[in-house]
Amino acid sequence: MPELRKDPIVGRWVIIATERAKRTVMPKLEPRTFPSGTLCPFCEGQEDKTPHEILAYRDRHSQPDKPGWRVRVVPNKFPALQIEGNLNKRGEGIYDKMNGIGAHEVIIECPFHEVSMTGLTEDNIREVLWAYRDRLVDLKKDQRLVYGMVFKNVGALAGASLEHTHSQLIVTPIVPINVSEEMQGAADFFNYRGRCIYCDMIHQELATEKRIVLDTPNFVAFCPFASRFPFETWIVPKLHNSHYENIQKMEIDELGTVLKTVLLKLETALDKPPYNYIIHTAPFDTQSLPHYHWHMEIIPRLTRVAGFEWGTGFYINPVPPEQAAEFLRETEVDPSAVPPRP
Amino acid sequence: MPELRKDPIVGRWVIIATERAKRTVMPKLEPRTFPSGTLCPFCEGQEDKTPHEILAYRDRHSQPDKPGWRVRVVPNKFPALQIEGNLNKRGEGIYDKMNGIGAHEVIIECPFHEVSMTGLTEDNIREVLWAYRDRLVDLKKDQRLVYGMVFKNVGALAGASLEHTHSQLIVTPIVPINVSEEMQGAADFFNYRGRCIYCDMIHQELATEKRIVLDTPNFVAFCPFASRFPFETWIVPKLHNSHYENIQKMEIDELGTVLKTVLLKLETALDKPPYNYIIHTAPFDTQSLPHYHWHMEIIPRLTRVAGFEWGTGFYINPVPPEQAAEFLRETEVDPSAVPPRP
Repeated sequence: MPELRKDPIVGRWVIIATERAKRTVMPKLEPRTFPSGTLCPFCEGQEDKTPHEILAYRDRHSQPDKPGWRVRVVPNKFPALQIEGNLNKRGEGIYDKMNGIGAHEVIIECPFHEVSMTGLTEDNIREVLWAYRDRLVDLKKDQRLVYGMVFKNVGALAGASLEHTHSQLIVTPIVPINVSEEMQGAADFFNYRGRCIYCDMIHQELATEKRIVLDTPNFVAFCPFASRFPFETWIVPKLHNSHYENIQKMEIDELGTVLKTVLLKLETALDKPPYNYIIHTAPFDTQSLPHYHWHMEIIPRLTRVAGFEWGTGFYINPVPPEQAAEFLRETEVDPSAVPPRP
Repeated sequence: MPELRKDPIVGRWVIIATERAKRTVMPKLEPRTFPSGTLCPFCEGQEDKTPHEILAYRDRHSQPDKPGWRVRVVPNKFPALQIEGNLNKRGEGIYDKMNGIGAHEVIIECPFHEVSMTGLTEDNIREVLWAYRDRLVDLKKDQRLVYGMVFKNVGALAGASLEHTHSQLIVTPIVPINVSEEMQGAADFFNYRGRCIYCDMIHQELATEKRIVLDTPNFVAFCPFASRFPFETWIVPKLHNSHYENIQKMEIDELGTVLKTVLLKLETALDKPPYNYIIHTAPFDTQSLPHYHWHMEIIPRLTRVAGFEWGTGFYINPVPPEQAAEFLRETEVDPSAVPPRP
């Protein structure tokens, strides 16, 4: 059973997940090699290589855990948290811990062996975005769980261990510290000014234009003023909404294209960098919040985080976001293009 | 001029340091190759390859920026912050920024081309520890500066760009967010219980013994209860003291041996992993604090931080600290050994 432990000083929780150790040869870090082609457990026809599916968008007459799906969600084989059991919160002297209850799921984005989300059609990406939403809505019903984080790791340097394009969802029994700090910062701004800080940011970014990467009817993509990383890019919906799972259909239709366009720009400008993206959304146990605003943060992994950043939380970014945004803005891409399939 | 920018939501500061971009080929990340042997700018005889020295422990008749030194401190050639100028704090709509005033120094730990601190004598390491202290004491006099972080990056994966053993010191005009959160957590504990949380930790760790790596008269090294990373190890002085620069001589004498021993254990157990260490110490503008306790955090870089960790601040650690500590405790090393020098 994984264990959650709380740092007694800063209140940060850590998952001690011994199951995960089986995934890699510990303790030495080897450059990861990706299984490809027929050995890939995420490819159509290899459904028996994963745990039983939780959700799949499938052709009408196909069977669970068999071919015929377009997007498929399965439990992570080496989960950081597990769904069975109870939290059993307890102390150990000055320390606090609880069982590692939660969910750790993998969203397999397509049945064929494609390594980049940008190799998918916009419609395919829309179904991935629906899968994120459907899983959040379902897991929200579990009263033990309070937060769901959807994220994507692309490339070994960004933490991926399989190359077949996929996303992950980790659902936790406590609100993670970065999320609660972000929520608190947004609440402080709201209490002081009576406005959502993200709405204000959208307003200011659209007015100055210098950090804009893409502007569409319902979304704006920009490199944030205090970008921690070179080419860090956020995608923010113009319609105020604190919870990703409350997204409108017309927004998903548009986000499929926006996300593919932004990722294509990053891949073209930076020659297919490793990257992470993360959906920042409000906790399950909150109603619609006037001060919080869901958004996606995309972080290309071009620089290494070193001692100073670990120690201080103070990032050193060698590329001004205005330069990065200009470069991305001027990088032309065609989101309707897809590679030929055999 | 580097620029400091504040994230308007969480209050995290970022250094936009365009000077640093010259250091590496941007935007693509290449595996770094280290210059070695005679090309190394940190080796004795190459003093003209660095900016003018700020401090050096030297033989009696030697000259500044010439051979004859044992430990040498120079400004970083590609500084994240620079010492000249004024802060000029200003706004830009909802955003805040200021000039990147501060210091970024390199502590070159020995004149010969040694790549690991464990290849130095204990006396040599003591002089490195004195250099940390002397620079902090000196920079503290500058009223514009409030925080000094001493850290070390070893190996390209941990962010090092030169292999010759060295440490760095970055001094900032604001207290970094991780530091203020750590201080606040410690202050909250003190206000509630009337005791220093680090002193309590030392007490509990020594009582249970299961996470102890090394126990000496003045220091204890242990793998913390909520270790974020496999084999994360802290070195904490038993004598309560909030500021590293107030360290006693007898402590430095002992710390030279303790630090070398712990690093040797990590190098032996993990086959010379990339790592970072960071000295956590109180801000310049505080007096001795009853609730804060300086210490060193050593983080081997065996796992990659992926999207989930970035987004949540919730770490997934596959190795329980009790297992890591037992392994390190049982790894026998000899801190008095040094490699032969030509």
